[in-house]
Order: sequence, then structure tokens, then C-alpha cells
Amino acid sequence: MAKLELDPDRLFSPNEAERAVAKRLYAEVRDLPIVSPHGHTDPRWFADNEPFDNPADLLIIPDHYIFRMLYSQGVRMEDLGVPTQDGAAVETDPRKIWRHFAEHYHLFRGTPSRMWLDWVFSSVFELTDSLEAGTADAYYDRIDAWLKEDAFRPRALFDRFDIEVIATTESPLDDLRHHKKIRESEWLGNVITAYRPDPVVDPDFEGFAENVAALGALTGENATDWRGYLNAHRKRRAFFKTMGATSTDHGHPTAATANLSEADATALFEKALAGRITPEEAETFRGQMLLEMARMSLEDGLVMQIHPGAWRNHNKPLFERFGRDKGADIPRQTDYVAALKPLLDAVGNERDLTVILFTLDETSYSRELAPLAGHYPALRLGPPWWFHDSPEGMRRFREQATETAGFYNTVGFNDDTRAFMSIPARHDVARRMDCNFLARLVADHRLPEDEAKEVAVDLAYNLVKKAYKL
Amino acid sequence: MAKLELDPDRLFSPNEAERAVAKRLYAEVRDLPIVSPHGHTDPRWFADNEPFDNPADLLIIPDHYIFRMLYSQGVRMEDLGVPTQDGAAVETDPRKIWRHFAEHYHLFRGTPSRMWLDWVFSSVFELTDSLEAGTADAYYDRIDAWLKEDAFRPRALFDRFDIEVIATTESPLDDLRHHKKIRESEWLGNVITAYRPDPVVDPDFEGFAENVAALGALTGENATDWRGYLNAHRKRRAFFKTMGATSTDHGHPTAATANLSEADATALFEKALAGRITPEEAETFRGQMLLEMARMSLEDGLVMQIHPGAWRNHNKPLFERFGRDKGADIPRQTDYVAALKPLLDAVGNERDLTVILFTLDETSYSRELAPLAGHYPALRLGPPWWFHDSPEGMRRFREQATETAGFYNTVGFNDDTRAFMSIPARHDVARRMDCNFLARLVADHRLPEDEAKEVAVDLAYNLVKKAYKL
Amino acid sequence: MAKLELDPDRLFSPNEAERAVAKRLYAEVRDLPIVSPHGHTDPRWFADNEPFDNPADLLIIPDHYIFRMLYSQGVRMEDLGVPTQDGAAVETDPRKIWRHFAEHYHLFRGTPSRMWLDWVFSSVFELTDSLEAGTADAYYDRIDAWLKEDAFRPRALFDRFDIEVIATTESPLDDLRHHKKIRESEWLGNVITAYRPDPVVDPDFEGFAENVAALGALTGENATDWRGYLNAHRKRRAFFKTMGATSTDHGHPTAATANLSEADATALFEKALAGRITPEEAETFRGQMLLEMARMSLEDGLVMQIHPGAWRNHNKPLFERFGRDKGADIPRQTDYVAALKPLLDAVGNERDLTVILFTLDETSYSRELAPLAGHYPALRLGPPWWFHDSPEGMRRFREQATETAGFYNTVGFNDDTRAFMSIPARHDVARRMDCNFLARLVADHRLPEDEAKEVAVDLAYNLVKKAYKL
Repeated sequence: MAKLELDPDRLFSPNEAERAVAKRLYAEVRDLPIVSPHGHTDPRWFADNEPFDNPADLLIIPDHYIFRMLYSQGVRMEDLGVPTQDGAAVETDPRKIWRHFAEHYHLFRGTPSRMWLDWVFSSVFELTDSLEAGTADAYYDRIDAWLKEDAFRPRALFDRFDIEVIATTESPLDDLRHHKKIRESEWLGNVITAYRPDPVVDPDFEGFAENVAALGALTGENATDWRGYLNAHRKRRAFFKTMGATSTDHGHPTAATANLSEADATALFEKALAGRITPEEAETFRGQMLLEMARMSLEDGLVMQIHPGAWRNHNKPLFERFGRDKGADIPRQTDYVAALKPLLDAVGNERDLTVILFTLDETSYSRELAPLAGHYPALRLGPPWWFHDSPEGMRRFREQATETAGFYNTVGFNDDTRAFMSIPARHDVARRMDCNFLARLVADHRLPEDEAKEVAVDLAYNLVKKAYKL
Repeated sequence: MAKLELDPDRLFSPNEAERAVAKRLYAEVRDLPIVSPHGHTDPRWFADNEPFDNPADLLIIPDHYIFRMLYSQGVRMEDLGVPTQDGAAVETDPRKIWRHFAEHYHLFRGTPSRMWLDWVFSSVFELTDSLEAGTADAYYDRIDAWLKEDAFRPRALFDRFDIEVIATTESPLDDLRHHKKIRESEWLGNVITAYRPDPVVDPDFEGFAENVAALGALTGENATDWRGYLNAHRKRRAFFKTMGATSTDHGHPTAATANLSEADATALFEKALAGRITPEEAETFRGQMLLEMARMSLEDGLVMQIHPGAWRNHNKPLFERFGRDKGADIPRQTDYVAALKPLLDAVGNERDLTVILFTLDETSYSRELAPLAGHYPALRLGPPWWFHDSPEGMRRFREQATETAGFYNTVGFNDDTRAFMSIPARHDVARRMDCNFLARLVADHRLPEDEAKEVAVDLAYNLVKKAYKL
Repeated sequence: MAKLELDPDRLFSPNEAERAVAKRLYAEVRDLPIVSPHGHTDPRWFADNEPFDNPADLLIIPDHYIFRMLYSQGVRMEDLGVPTQDGAAVETDPRKIWRHFAEHYHLFRGTPSRMWLDWVFSSVFELTDSLEAGTADAYYDRIDAWLKEDAFRPRALFDRFDIEVIATTESPLDDLRHHKKIRESEWLGNVITAYRPDPVVDPDFEGFAENVAALGALTGENATDWRGYLNAHRKRRAFFKTMGATSTDHGHPTAATANLSEADATALFEKALAGRITPEEAETFRGQMLLEMARMSLEDGLVMQIHPGAWRNHNKPLFERFGRDKGADIPRQTDYVAALKPLLDAVGNERDLTVILFTLDETSYSRELAPLAGHYPALRLGPPWWFHDSPEGMRRFREQATETAGFYNTVGFNDDTRAFMSIPARHDVARRMDCNFLARLVADHRLPEDEAKEVAVDLAYNLVKKAYKL
């Protein structure tokens, strides 16, 4: 049976000169607290502090990184316990689901999921053999037993993971009750929300008009009127700030922005509410809303995040059977230069605004994003995102963005995850890869080591706090 | 005079830790038989087993990698003996052609052609000095003499190269007489065909309507009728299977697919036959035929290969003088996400279908192809293709595809070549680069060495056999 | 206080085997003279040989690499002394400007600007402490004092930098008086011009019609007539040749070319002069002018350079306040395959024509540019340009272009700069990175070291002289 061992120098260059530097840099950042400014953990966990259910419910069923890979190799979603839209029966025995996963664990070789999971198995659950078919049951039993311990309840893990602050992401229609409960509890963990208005700014979102109506009801504004609608946003943003929010988040298909006259914006809004908007007009409306959000950010100080470029739910039959977020979101070519111009002409030179750009199209790093962020005062670059939150993805980001944008137009790391157990592993990979990148610059004499140390700490801790106002 | 020497550790990292691992991994795969599931060798060679003509006819005149580079630096195609369309005179003395090549051999520094050729010179022809103007004649004489030996006839080389199976590529209109002759001979070499229907599915192909008529004649179907035409395909596919075919191959300008009603497909087909089809409609028709081929693959089990993205015959004057395949095919940006959606919605979730995607646009590796193959059960990624069948191309493929698609959504190596002599060198480069990539993962502790050994064997041998059903 | 030290092995691989080779290769090229075939130094400097003004005027105010980075992090352009279009007051005290720069010097960590500047500080001004807020004044004083010395006048530095030849870039409307004065002086420095016709070939250029009129006046041609206009170009090109020009330069938004009939070209030209040309027509007209320039190059032997792909002056408010070239030029996706086809069909097979292609879209290296240059006799690839004139940019260029285009379809290095002080540093970075790339090929046995030495010298010296006819 193969042993599960995490090498203390993992991800550092095999070259001894570089590795020695990387280790010294990493020693400066390894024990810094985790600042997680953007992610998708469930605030209910920290509000209620109930034990997690079982290994499959915790680690497999909700993780689209994992089931998409298994699915791609012929494992049925039903056999992984992924619930169907119509309630058709799926596997309900978590141990059987776990065995399916264990039998296919070799599929993750060379992927970041493998690194994150091995860290969870080794560091959180103190497992010492590798996961494979033959160890599946032993794994299941050990993890299941741990999950029943108080030390593995959400708040205890939060504290053990040394999380200084974590942001969740909520719709404007969310009442934030879990955040309220956390804040009113005696627990000191800092869990904040973030304003994600897609359901009420995207005409293509399921139930858009109803969502806008609900927004109006929540705020006492006439939200079917353009000005009332904008006011309703202002009020919800203010409410989100009372629950710690320092940022908004925008997950659009493209990076398109617009700067319409009030009359034109009003006309589009009315078409959207009436369900008569064309796809092109919907794109323009979302773009207009990015500009409206930027203007509100100038008023209320919330930092904007733009996450464009995914074709959501690309697999139609799978979407119909299992719904959203099932590993079938596929990136596309994404233009930023023309798309952002309306927004940048309006507010790009504002030094008090921060707009953080993410991409799924790595070709934009050196061609568009670094030149944009290396010029406009309002722009910063988010870390490598989603598919690119990986060692090679991080290496490419630093290699392709740094020479034009420098380090100080970037904002540290986002884990962007709902996989709570692996959050420390994800931050650790980012810290190691940044230290490794800096070590190369030191080893080939592009940067003195004392300056690299300062940068390492900035990338792991200071920049994220500054950019997200945490 | 410089010596020609192949270092046994060539292409492995200069870092000693990585190199040591790479050597151990390579020892596991170096002597595995060659499985060549896709290429363009001439089945006549193996059917007739005649000696190859002379060094120029064997190594230069048919190799567009070689003459395109010489041409780019001012060598005339005529001086390389490349035949003209109108029969205008070109150089016919193979020794003179060889000298032109030798004088310009420095142009290939840093290219894979240089590595492949040096391997052929050293390992096949046992030459020990470097090729240059001063050694041109000695090279010519040595190679020419060897080619007259029985040990250098096609079948002997096939056996010496330890080729377990090789696929050629033929049109549906081909009678496969060479394959028949090979199968009926006492020779045991496994040479199989593959179904490449471009001449009868691409309305822009020279003589499309005549080709379809010929297809009807061959199959006894009324191939000018849409259903008869599809039946004719079914019959030819079945016939190709009797000659060993396990795959089809599709070399379209883009990855566009379509899912038309039978009435619409019929209408397009009739326009195509009548020569009244527009370029956009021709694109749709080719896309529809990809879906028809996928449906037939579900019936008969043939694996599909899609090779999109080249602007064929970009150089108009050269095309008019010398014809197709003269080194003037230029890659373009290629979208897969929208293009493949009709096909994927129809058959992407089929676990019994295998569609292997290739690309000439490396930007699609991390952005589109790995996310698609890392989700859809029917999809696999072909190896780096054509211009990217090279050490750096292979490195980029693994670095950019693995973290999202893993290793097991890839299918091993294709040599895709008509340059028979260099087939072992090409597979050897792929094995070395894969071992080198894995060695990096081992050396920086992303993968245990025992698992890397398993992956190395899978990449060199098992995955190609499984994906292509060989 | 941190020391400023330039390691003699900077930029070479930390791997000892590679580094040893790189050092041996670099020893062959380190002391070769600088050949600078394309750039933007001011010929007045060499004509008048006046001392440079002060550190801020020399190193900060004219350098868009520097002020764009400072601006991106909230430093006001006014505080850097960048003059406004309307004459509104800006900082005029060069010492204060210098202090702003020094306080933000950490922003340049990891950028090529940092490497170039440190070289200037250390090698030209013999400074031994790092630049930071605490050393700002000492730096200012030292540099300011040196600039008053005769040894720091332009001609002395030119000689000290061992510049064999440098090209500046001028409009056809320029009288080249500075070049004339240099040629008539007793100084032997070889400063040549290059023909940059954008103001008279781009209908969107400010004052296009007036510029064409001026061109007519200068040449005695009726330049409002299409044939007279082309003749005027011929005459100015001939005049530029008397001032040493061997090349033309074309900075278009895209790589579009066209091959119109004379009637159509004439009609577009007349629309352009009348200010009635649409954006699409303007694009076609610029494309047509590239073909006209290529035809003239076949007559007069001038080498063509095409620099496409920047969205100039992307920041509208900044452009309105400060004008052109203020760090707000942003690259875009750039197609070459379709764009260049009209030109290539017309003259791509000419062996006596040289067209050097540059790109800001690195995705084109392996996909489009290397296959094009690896085939067409008229094409060569320029070095990594602008944002990509950097260690990682150079590494990507060689890794992505060499395997298809080889080394001999590239043309050595361009500094492309107006930052005279850093020209030796820029060439040195290029030589180091090329030697480092070659060292990798030697260390992993892709290229014998004796051949790599030959290539290193070709890349540093021979290829640029041959390609630019210097």
C-alpha cells in the first residue's frame, strides 16, 4: 500500500539554488493568517456550527471539480449521488459514492484537486496511506469518525485554519440571516458577505422580473422604475455593508460595459422587465449595470470584482437533468480592451475606485490585462481563477503579468471555493508558487532577496487586505 | 568536421534530480512497441515492399516540413525537385537536391526536424559526422547504398522499428488494394486504414459532386439522395473496418458542427451537389456531416478524430504552380466551445462514443479543450499536432491541459507523418518529453514516482490502444 | 541601505550546467557592437551634442514605461511633470519629480524597467546604493553632476556604448536636418533615419489632408492625385535613403493589407482627402498603402517593418488632457493570416523583399507568425516588441517561434526606444536571454555547443545586419 506523504518542499523548484531561496521566502509567509476575500462557503455552517454530514456529502457531491472529472471518464452522475432536477432516484449510500471516487482517484494525477485533497486527507484527517480502491473503506471510516468530533465542526476548523476573515457571496435578495446570527453569536470568527447582484441585473437570469419585484419589496423602493431600481441597489449594498461586505461580484458572460443615457437605460430596463429584451440588448443592459455598480462603488466604497468569460451550463441534456454548476461551464475567448472602454472612460481614472479583473482566457494576461492594469488607476488584477487556480496556472499568471503590471497591481490570492476543507491547501499552493516565482527572480539576479521577502509577504497578506479594504 | 552524436539523455531536464527521475521513467517505456494510430504513410510501401528510391526522394521531396523551411530562406522549390502542376522542368538529379539541402541544414537548428533527421542519420543509417555542405556527398552515398539493401526495404524497417500497428488514411473512394495485398501476404505487419471522408463530405473539395457519384457507384446506393448518401457512407465504413479501420478522420477548416433537420440537411446536400452552395452553407454542411459521422460511430464503433484550424494552400501563386501540401497551410484562431455545441448536445454524453480533438491553436488547450474534455464523456484530447509536434509544443500541451483534463482524457501520441524513416524518432521524442514532464511533477512532489511510472506507460502505450480500440 | 549590484551572470539559468554554457556563449557576444535598426532616439541629440538637462527630464518625463506604472498606482501625471495639452500647470521642479519616482521604485520589481534602470544607475552613473526614498537626493545629485560632464554628452555616450549604427524614425514631412547636420559633422557616429509614413498614409491621422498637401509641396508632385501621391512617396523614400535609411516602418491598428484596382484605390484616396472616408474604408486604405509600400520596396530595396495591434490612446480623458503616447496604448487580438493574404499573394514569394513582422499578441507566435515566416520568402519575424521586450517575453518568443520558424527567419534585436541611456542594457538583456535559451538547447542536447555559438553571434549581430541591410 502506497504511503501518503506531503513533502515540506513541495512545488519548489528542484534546482537547489532556487529551492533554497524559495524555502527562506516561504518561511516568511507560511504562518500568516488566511485572508479569503472571495468565495462560496455556506454561511449557515458558521451560523449553526452543526457537524458536517459524511465524507461524500462533504467532499464529493458538492464539488464540481471532482464530479466533472469522474463524469468525463464515464462515471454516472447518479452513481455519485448528484441530485436530479425531477427527483429521479440517485445513489444515496455515501459509502458507495466514496468507493466510486476512490476507484477513480488516479484520474486526478497532475491536477490541483489531487494536491488539495491529499492535503485534506493528510493534514486534516491524519490519513497516512494513499487513497485507492483498497483503502476506500478505511478512509471513509476515519473521515466519518472525525466529522463527529467537535474539533471538526465548522467554527473549530475555521479557527484551526487560522482564517482571519472569509467572504461569502450572496444575492441582494438574501436576508443574510446566517451572517446576522454569526455576528450576534459569541464566536469571534470574521465571516462577511459580498454583494452578487446577478439575479437582479441579468435579464437572462431565471425569474429576473420576479427578482426585481422582490428587490423592490425588500427595500420599499419602486424597483420597476429605473431610479427606484438603482435606489434599491443602494439600499441593499448599504445593508450588505452592515454584514461586513467590502465588495461586489459580477459573473457576466463577457466583460462588456456600457454607458447609456438615462433614457436608453430606462428603455432597456423596461424591456428586460417585460421579457422583450434581445440577447444583444441583455448584454448591453448587463454592461450598463457594471457602470452603475462602479458609480455606486464611488459612493459607498465597495470594491468591484468582474468575473467574465464562462459559457455557463454548456451541456444542455446535463443541465436539464441536474441543473446549474455541474462542471459544464466552459471558458471562451474574452475581450477586455473594447469591452471595458465605456466603464474606463467614465471611471477608470478614479483613484478611489478599485475594480478587480479576473479571466478564464489566459491569453489576456500579457496582451490586455497587464497593460490595462499597468495603466488605469482604478484597475487591479485578480489571481488566476477557477481552472487556472493551479500551480501551472499561477506560474503562467506571474510570468505573463508581472513584467508589465508589476506585483503591486495584483491583489493576492482568492480561493473562490465552497470546498471549505481545502481552503488552507489552496492558499498554501498560492504561497508556495509565489515564493517559487520570486525565488527564480532572486536566483537569476532579477530581484534582491530582501526585496523578494517583502514582496512575498505583500502577495500573501498585505495586498489582499489593502485591495479589498479588509 | 563535427561529429554526429545522440546523447542518451537528450531532452531531459539539465537539473540532476529531475533528470534522474526522467531516466528511470524512460527506462520503463523506451522499448515499448510503437502504436501509430494516425498517419500518412503509403500502404503501397508495405504491400509491394520495393526498395526506397534514393535519399532525396525518400527524405526531402515529399517532406513539407523540410522544403517549406528551405523555401522560406530563398531556396527555389524547383531546385528541390518539387514537381510542378504544369509539368515545367524541375531539378531531377537527387544528388544535387541533396546538396541544396545539406548546404542549408543549419536552418533547422532548434527545430524538431533537426532532431528527427539526426536520429535517422545516426540510428538508421549509422552516419557519424554532422550533415553539412562538406559531408553532403558522403551522406548521399551512404544512404543511397543502404537503401539498396534488403534490410532497408519497408517491411524490414517496419519490423526493425518494432511497430505493433500503424494506421494509414484513405478516402472512401480508395479501393484499399494495398491493404488487401498486405493482409493476404505472409507478412505479419499490422497496417490498418482509417476513413477520411473529406473528398465526399466537403462541398469545397475539388470534384465533390463527381466524388459523391463515385461513392454511389462503389456502394450500389443512390448517393445523390440524402439517405442513400448516408447509407453509402455506412457501407464504406463497414468495408474500411474489414481492412482494420478503427477510426475516422476529419480535416475541416473549423470545428463547426450542426444538427439540422433531415429536410434542411437534404436541401443543403442538393445545393452542394448542384454547385450552388454558399461558403457559409458549405461550412454548415461539413458541420452536419460531423454529426452524421458521430451518429454512425455510435452504430459501428469507429473512433472520430477532428483536425480543424488550418487555412490550406494559403499561398495562391505557389498553389497554382505546385499544388496542395507544399508547406503553405497556416493555422488560425479556432473556437471549439460554440462550434462543437450542436454535436455535444446530441452525442456528447455518450459513453460509448470517442471523439478525439486536435488543435493548431494552442490557446485552446487551457481555455477550451481541457475544460471540454474534462467534462464530456465522449471527448478526448489528441496529442500536440503538426507544428506543435515538438519538444516545446509537447511541454506546453502537458503544462496547459493536464491540470484541468488530467492525463486520462488524453490519448497518447500520434506521429501523423508520411516520413516513415523518422517515426521511431517522433515517438521517442514524445516519450522523452512525457517522462520529462512527469519527472518534474515527481521532483517537486506533485506525484509519487510509482504513480508516475504507471502514467508513463499509459501515455506511451495503454491510452492509445484503449482510445483507438487497437 | 541596500547595495546596488549587477550580478555578472544575471538572467542565466540557476542550473549549473545551463549556466556554464550560457556564460561561454555570452562571452562570444557580450562585446559585439550594438546594431540598433529601429528606435526612437532624437537625432537632435547627436546633431547638437548638447548636455542632457537633468535626471527627471532625461529618465522619467519622456518614458511612458515609467509614468504609466506610477500612474496606475495613483501618482498624478501632473506630479511627474508631464505637460498638459492646455498648458495647465504641472510640477516643474525636477528634484521633486525624481523623489516621487524614487518613493515608488518598488513598483518596478519584476519588470524590465527595473533591470534597465539599475543598469543605467550602476554602469553609467556608477551608483552603488539602491534607489529608494532615502537615496533619492543622492541619486539626483550624482546623476545631475555627471550630466554636466562632457563624457555624458550624447556623442560621447554613443561612442562609449559602442553603437555601430542606430536608426531613428521620421515622418516623410521631416526635413531630416539633424541627420544632415550629423552627416556633415566631423563626428563618425552612424545615425540613420527610417521612413515612417503614418501621418500621410493613415486617413485617421490628425491633419491627414494637410499632411498630404505638405508632402506634395516638399516633392513638387501633385500629391492629391493618386499617381502623384505615390510618386511623392518614391521621392521622399529616395531622400530618406540619402540620409542612410534602409527601412520603412508602419504602425497600423491591425495587420490588414489590400490589393485594390487603381480605380478603387484612387476613389478611396479621394474620399480620405475629402474627409468622407468610413472607418472600414480607412482600414482598407491603410492596407492598400502597405502593398504600395511593398511594391516600392521591391524598387528601392527598403526593408518593411509592420508594427500592428495597439489600440492607441485608449484612455480618452487622459488623451484629452495630456495627448499621445502616455502609456495608454493597449494591445488587442491581432490576426495575420487573413490580414496579410492580399500582400502575400502579391509579393510574398519575392526573395528580394524583406517584410519584418512584429506583434503585441503573443498567441500569434506559434499559431500564425512562425508558420508564415517559416514559409514565405519575403517574411521575417521581428523580436519581442514593447510590452514583450522583457526576459519572459523573449523566452516565450524563442520557445514559441523557433521550432517552426527556426532562428534564421528572425532578425536579431530591436531596442525600439527613446530611452537612450538604457540602450546597452536592453541589448544586453536580449543577448543574455538568447544565450540562455541556446544554453538550454545545448544542455538538453538539442544543439551542439559549437553550433550554438554560431547562432548566438548571428542573433546578436549578423542577422540584424543582413535583414536590415546595414
